[in-house]
Amino acid sequence: MITLASDFGTPYPAAMKGVILDRTDARLVDVGHDFPRQDVRTAAFWLREVLPYFPPAVHLAVVDPGVGTDRAALVVRAGDHALVGPDNGLLFPAARRLAEEQTGASEIDVFDYSYENPDSATFHGRDVFAPAAAAVHEVGVDAVESLDAVSPTDEFADLRFPDPGVDEDAATGEVLVVDDFGNAVTNLPGDHLDGRDAVTVNGESVPVGASFAAVDPGERLLTVGSHGNVELAVNRGRGDDAFGVGVGDSVRVELDG
Amino acid sequence: MITLASDFGTPYPAAMKGVILDRTDARLVDVGHDFPRQDVRTAAFWLREVLPYFPPAVHLAVVDPGVGTDRAALVVRAGDHALVGPDNGLLFPAARRLAEEQTGASEIDVFDYSYENPDSATFHGRDVFAPAAAAVHEVGVDAVESLDAVSPTDEFADLRFPDPGVDEDAATGEVLVVDDFGNAVTNLPGDHLDGRDAVTVNGESVPVGASFAAVDPGERLLTVGSHGNVELAVNRGRGDDAFGVGVGDSVRVELDG
Amino acid sequence: MITLASDFGTPYPAAMKGVILDRTDARLVDVGHDFPRQDVRTAAFWLREVLPYFPPAVHLAVVDPGVGTDRAALVVRAGDHALVGPDNGLLFPAARRLAEEQTGASEIDVFDYSYENPDSATFHGRDVFAPAAAAVHEVGVDAVESLDAVSPTDEFADLRFPDPGVDEDAATGEVLVVDDFGNAVTNLPGDHLDGRDAVTVNGESVPVGASFAAVDPGERLLTVGSHGNVELAVNRGRGDDAFGVGVGDSVRVELDG
Repeated sequence: MITLASDFGTPYPAAMKGVILDRTDARLVDVGHDFPRQDVRTAAFWLREVLPYFPPAVHLAVVDPGVGTDRAALVVRAGDHALVGPDNGLLFPAARRLAEEQTGASEIDVFDYSYENPDSATFHGRDVFAPAAAAVHEVGVDAVESLDAVSPTDEFADLRFPDPGVDEDAATGEVLVVDDFGNAVTNLPGDHLDGRDAVTVNGESVPVGASFAAVDPGERLLTVGSHGNVELAVNRGRGDDAFGVGVGDSVRVELDG
Repeated sequence: MITLASDFGTPYPAAMKGVILDRTDARLVDVGHDFPRQDVRTAAFWLREVLPYFPPAVHLAVVDPGVGTDRAALVVRAGDHALVGPDNGLLFPAARRLAEEQTGASEIDVFDYSYENPDSATFHGRDVFAPAAAAVHEVGVDAVESLDAVSPTDEFADLRFPDPGVDEDAATGEVLVVDDFGNAVTNLPGDHLDGRDAVTVNGESVPVGASFAAVDPGERLLTVGSHGNVELAVNRGRGDDAFGVGVGDSVRVELDG
Repeated sequence: MITLASDFGTPYPAAMKGVILDRTDARLVDVGHDFPRQDVRTAAFWLREVLPYFPPAVHLAVVDPGVGTDRAALVVRAGDHALVGPDNGLLFPAARRLAEEQTGASEIDVFDYSYENPDSATFHGRDVFAPAAAAVHEVGVDAVESLDAVSPTDEFADLRFPDPGVDEDAATGEVLVVDDFGNAVTNLPGDHLDGRDAVTVNGESVPVGASFAAVDPGERLLTVGSHGNVELAVNRGRGDDAFGVGVGDSVRVELDG
């Protein structure tokens, strides 16, 4: 199985699929190809949240503002999974999560994937990463080292999401991403809200709900999203607009009384 | 085969696919994941129109404004097909159509699918419905009853589209949905237009065409859509704008002379 | 393998897939279903650029402003590939490219696919082309002639992209398409830029870069796209806006000094 994720829209992902299917008959599953353009951080977040639900697979992910420069191509092994993509941090939050869930530790193996003279300088998804993913799939995740093109490396661009500041009375974090529904997903752990009916968010009291429908349509709430983090939301509406927050904005949650 | 439909955009459907593929190697086919947000009625219409073209399959459909409340999860058997989704009416127009086309009657079997403590209160697509669809697929549509989690029920939220008022000279109905092209699809039966070159629609004379190209680009027409219903359309344009109608608006078609 | 391309959005492509899967268990791969509405030329360009990356397959493509008129349905054989779609030119740029890449010549076989009384006059993707693609897949590309519905034809609507005017000092061409990133793809051959650091484009000097990142974010450049043509681009921005060009607009590139 090979999953595919990119910011390529239409029809570039199909060229990657053609290249892969010319080399292997692996099952292909799209994670999505309309991630925000060249936004490595948002795609990295979603890969971390989605890929752990898959059985062992090769995960091809390309959000690559540096395409055509000398940035490396990477293969990252995490338990029974492998991730293939550009050396810009995109793969690491997902790789560590996959490793943790499989082995209890976030140990990963990082390989440089060497390539020369790809057909284009603007579409390495097709010319570098798709062939690499097919090659990893064909040789098997356990045997990545046997590929001539790979060599172990410990030099790579890392990406880690910031930890929130949490104490007994308050937690301060930030918005990591806004999803398609407008829910503003923070890095604050959901259990911070345990047993609370309402909290103070950036100075205003807001109800806490187990589900969106806990408040009337159009009303704001804090809830724990499907990733286990605190989410600023509106029942049947957009939390980002209602709270006036976007990616990177600070969120402070105070526990009253 | 498992089909998937939702209003989830990207990348939530991929999490559902991961969950399913971790449990079965069924073929997966997307019906679509960009249905209008939380619009149960529009999705129900399209499921009814699209699913009957598939061979026997399990159809997972999630448009679920009540996620996290105590609304039930349902499995509906219709002939050789099964539908899995929330108890909000979404599944029933398609289920009855599937049953009619296979058996000549609209008889369906409705089962409650019990679940406890899903991982999230906001993403039952991943935590409840995807596992349910995989379980139904693995046990087989004929043997749904053998699943511990299911029990027959006759209490569920139904959804039926309104019947039009049709007599010899005129028909009065409403717009059920507007498709991506801007065609306003009504509940008026297409044969009402048989043998007519023009009719009066909401007081104005409009040509009837067998195809969009029957009128010049930019011109309005009535045509019979691929679902057999009267459609308010514009050749190479948007019918909803040109006729000034949206979902739920009344449409009266008078046969002149 | 059957690939699918259309301008149908959601959920019409799923009806085509249902029809196909009711007739064959071929692997299905989406090329894309959000091509610009009824824009035969843009879709023809992308099919030409993407389909050659696939292994031998049947390619179903439907962008069809003339649906429901008497325009024919075509099956085009190009080497080991077959293309199925409306007789409006859509298939030919891709068919000739596929033939050239496989055989070194652009020889193709064109067949008329006869159909009678399809279920609808507005959705031949479902009622004519999907069944045709399934039939071609089942009989095999080599044996297209054995289908009762097909007959060789040399009457069809052709579509060819214009050749640029190229001489030693300058090349004059046009914008063929604008991709989702805003890159304006011309018909000018990439090797026209060989060895140049800058050229004059429509009267203004613009740097030439091997990749988008060759210039600062927000800056304009000319680069050679993944299709081998000159592209008017902006690093992390939209080339069409920055150069003030759209599809069909003239582009003149002068080699200075």
